[in-house]
Amino acid sequence: MENRLRLSEIASMIGAVLDGDDAEVNGVAAIEEALPGQVTFLSNPKYTAHARDTKAAAVIAKDPVPDAGCAFLLSPNPYLAFARVVELFHPRERPEPGVSPMASVHADAALGKDVSIGPFVVVEKGAIVGDRVIIMAGSYVGKEVSVGEDSLIYPRVTLYHGVRVGKRAILHSGCVIGSDGFGFAPSEKGFMKIPQVGIVEIGDDVEIGANTTIDRATLGMTRIDRGTKLDNLIQVGHNVAIGSDTVIASQTGISGSCKVGSRVMLGGQVGLAGHIEVGDGVMLGAKSGVGSSISTKESQVWSGIPAIPHKTWLRVAMLMSSLPELFRRVKRLEAAKSASGEE
Amino acid sequence: MENRLRLSEIASMIGAVLDGDDAEVNGVAAIEEALPGQVTFLSNPKYTAHARDTKAAAVIAKDPVPDAGCAFLLSPNPYLAFARVVELFHPRERPEPGVSPMASVHADAALGKDVSIGPFVVVEKGAIVGDRVIIMAGSYVGKEVSVGEDSLIYPRVTLYHGVRVGKRAILHSGCVIGSDGFGFAPSEKGFMKIPQVGIVEIGDDVEIGANTTIDRATLGMTRIDRGTKLDNLIQVGHNVAIGSDTVIASQTGISGSCKVGSRVMLGGQVGLAGHIEVGDGVMLGAKSGVGSSISTKESQVWSGIPAIPHKTWLRVAMLMSSLPELFRRVKRLEAAKSASGEE
Amino acid sequence: MENRLRLSEIASMIGAVLDGDDAEVNGVAAIEEALPGQVTFLSNPKYTAHARDTKAAAVIAKDPVPDAGCAFLLSPNPYLAFARVVELFHPRERPEPGVSPMASVHADAALGKDVSIGPFVVVEKGAIVGDRVIIMAGSYVGKEVSVGEDSLIYPRVTLYHGVRVGKRAILHSGCVIGSDGFGFAPSEKGFMKIPQVGIVEIGDDVEIGANTTIDRATLGMTRIDRGTKLDNLIQVGHNVAIGSDTVIASQTGISGSCKVGSRVMLGGQVGLAGHIEVGDGVMLGAKSGVGSSISTKESQVWSGIPAIPHKTWLRVAMLMSSLPELFRRVKRLEAAKSASGEE
Repeated sequence: MENRLRLSEIASMIGAVLDGDDAEVNGVAAIEEALPGQVTFLSNPKYTAHARDTKAAAVIAKDPVPDAGCAFLLSPNPYLAFARVVELFHPRERPEPGVSPMASVHADAALGKDVSIGPFVVVEKGAIVGDRVIIMAGSYVGKEVSVGEDSLIYPRVTLYHGVRVGKRAILHSGCVIGSDGFGFAPSEKGFMKIPQVGIVEIGDDVEIGANTTIDRATLGMTRIDRGTKLDNLIQVGHNVAIGSDTVIASQTGISGSCKVGSRVMLGGQVGLAGHIEVGDGVMLGAKSGVGSSISTKESQVWSGIPAIPHKTWLRVAMLMSSLPELFRRVKRLEAAKSASGEE
Repeated sequence: MENRLRLSEIASMIGAVLDGDDAEVNGVAAIEEALPGQVTFLSNPKYTAHARDTKAAAVIAKDPVPDAGCAFLLSPNPYLAFARVVELFHPRERPEPGVSPMASVHADAALGKDVSIGPFVVVEKGAIVGDRVIIMAGSYVGKEVSVGEDSLIYPRVTLYHGVRVGKRAILHSGCVIGSDGFGFAPSEKGFMKIPQVGIVEIGDDVEIGANTTIDRATLGMTRIDRGTKLDNLIQVGHNVAIGSDTVIASQTGISGSCKVGSRVMLGGQVGLAGHIEVGDGVMLGAKSGVGSSISTKESQVWSGIPAIPHKTWLRVAMLMSSLPELFRRVKRLEAAKSASGEE
Repeated sequence: MENRLRLSEIASMIGAVLDGDDAEVNGVAAIEEALPGQVTFLSNPKYTAHARDTKAAAVIAKDPVPDAGCAFLLSPNPYLAFARVVELFHPRERPEPGVSPMASVHADAALGKDVSIGPFVVVEKGAIVGDRVIIMAGSYVGKEVSVGEDSLIYPRVTLYHGVRVGKRAILHSGCVIGSDGFGFAPSEKGFMKIPQVGIVEIGDDVEIGANTTIDRATLGMTRIDRGTKLDNLIQVGHNVAIGSDTVIASQTGISGSCKVGSRVMLGGQVGLAGHIEVGDGVMLGAKSGVGSSISTKESQVWSGIPAIPHKTWLRVAMLMSSLPELFRRVKRLEAAKSASGEE
């Protein structure tokens, strides 16, 4: 955080318009915690009042807030503009290129230019590691794995044999890509393992969270398309296909052979049963459970176990605590009917 | 995938009957994706139509499909037969026997014949590793651990001290066996840790999924019996006992001291409260939550939070979205009653 | 388990009163499994009968059980007293102090006195490791991380750069502290990553379970206060603050920017939506889902999705399976009304 920049410099770097004094600033912070000399942002209109109280030198916002004492950096997408300002003050550090003498890289693995390979990393035979890829300590890159250029693999990631990772992907610590799908055939001797001989393919610009697991396909491939982001502790079963620009929150589970579309948003702890489709653009509320295919045709947002259109779910959820009262009311009606001798 | 086999050879190897031309084949694929020269299978009668359209040379099935253009390999258990054919074309590769010079194996650990120990593996004092066991890169085998012959430990597995693993077990990457059970006694100074001094015992032919965690017992042992299969990201608490040939899907959590029977099937994201019993043969729907002991006596299949017999749950689930309408109907009845002056 | 102690010695060490013969004992066990010569405990009055049948030499209990054949060690908090006795017979083994020659410790890292650093551990530049800290095999301690004295880090833990861990903390295998928060800004080119430049701070006496993940803050810090205990496979999002002496069971997920109070108890598989507050002392039933802030004002215990006061939830849960019957009853009332020609 030693960078010092003028607001006018920042404005030109992020394509914003400066409204106010061209002060020098030295960092970023949340709007309630910002100190003098820092930049903050306002993307949710609910928090407009904070702009009047903030000590920040400047607020990135869509429109200036009247009566605020700070400068504004006006941008049509304040959250995105803020992301860029954070980067200006916190440029991503990267390790020096080079292979640690304490790594184990097979002679028949192909390493691109300027890769960084940390200590206790294993790169197996036939693996292909693209230019400028960073593989941090203790990660395992199996046989015939490929990792596209500029990807970043944090410590202790496992890529089983044959896994393909695109460019600029980010894999967080502890994630496991390409473990066996969960397939067993019942037999007289108990369950027999169905060999899982497919692969996993992860597209460009995908991010995979810490300790998330993605199983290889039985046959064929498990696929996660370009730009999709997975949070921590997510399970993706064998032969699943997930489209592009989809966002999946933590602890969600996607059973085998599901098809999840593009620009889908899944809340945390969602569960999808096997072999179902979730259409492009669908949003699923946290903790919902989906047992059959859904699309935006009937509703864009779904919630509940089993998932129903979100609006209906909201009404149902609100009525739940009145259920005991409803039972009593029905009982009263029955008593009245009985008393009036109608039966 | 360089193997080439005649269908008659396959038939004799898997105990199937060939019905059709004795073509030469070179691989396996799913029924919709199979190319000429490949073998596929049909176990779900719902997909019988696919057998007429497939390009596969042969379909493994219970009965031949009339008007299909391919050969059939007839078998009473097509899914199991298919598993064997996959193995014929994709024999499990195993690393060369030997201990990596980059592993750390204690002088007082006992290694069996033909074990393979990868780089950055740690085997602590007193550990016993059976014949032909494979321990892949970065795994940790604690003090006094035993691993039975022919077991396969993928990269980055942790076996805490004293854990016992049976024969032919498969432990996927990132799983942690023998971490402390979650036990604390409230005191004036906050929670005091109850030392967890028991062990974990995992039976023969058990498979444990990626990033699954199994806690050691407080006293005594946490046990998973022969042939049971656990998917990824499952939690098994301290002192749990799970029977044999049980199958547990991803992200399920089993609280401390539960007893889960044999041939049980738990769906994904199921939760069991502490100290309960799930009887032999019970099936639990995904996302169900079980608060008290259940058995097949009342129902074989259970679902819901709390879990109720599945048939009832299906009806309840279907009615949920009509709940707002039900409240309105009761209101109308009350209005009518009131209008008719009965009160 | 070679220790042999007289009951009177134990009584004085744990501050209990011996009621019965001063026998010599050699171990601890659960009340139903205890052998002659062992000590056990009774904290739940439900199990008082076991004290009459136990073979144990002595039972730690609040009050003596009449007609029991064993001695008693009387203590106002039997569970806590038992924890101490377990420790007497199973003193925590610790590895020899020293840095493994197979570890990678940066020259600019500061190691305290008597630290133990196992093989394949990485300690990056600027890290500070307190006195007597144990870092087991394969763990990763990032740049500028600090670990307070007497903390215990099990194998294969990841501490991303800048993470701060307090004193006497216990981090179980596979946990990941300081991974990026899940923050992306939608743009025309897809989701752009919001750099996550905050940290994680973990207080003294905190325990973190196996494969649990705790994300670093976007800005500022994610905090877990003194004495709080997290079970396995838990997700803690960016900018979360958790108070002291809070206990969180396995597979629970806490979304970004939540504030969880002190002395809170969260059951397993609970989910908290983003930006909500859970007040001091709240208890949440397993699998509950919380969408808005709650405190003990309305109820101490909450359950359900969405969470409602536990007492109401119990009644609702009990009525759920009668819902089909309720629909039929309303239908009958409607039919009767219609037959009586009131409309």
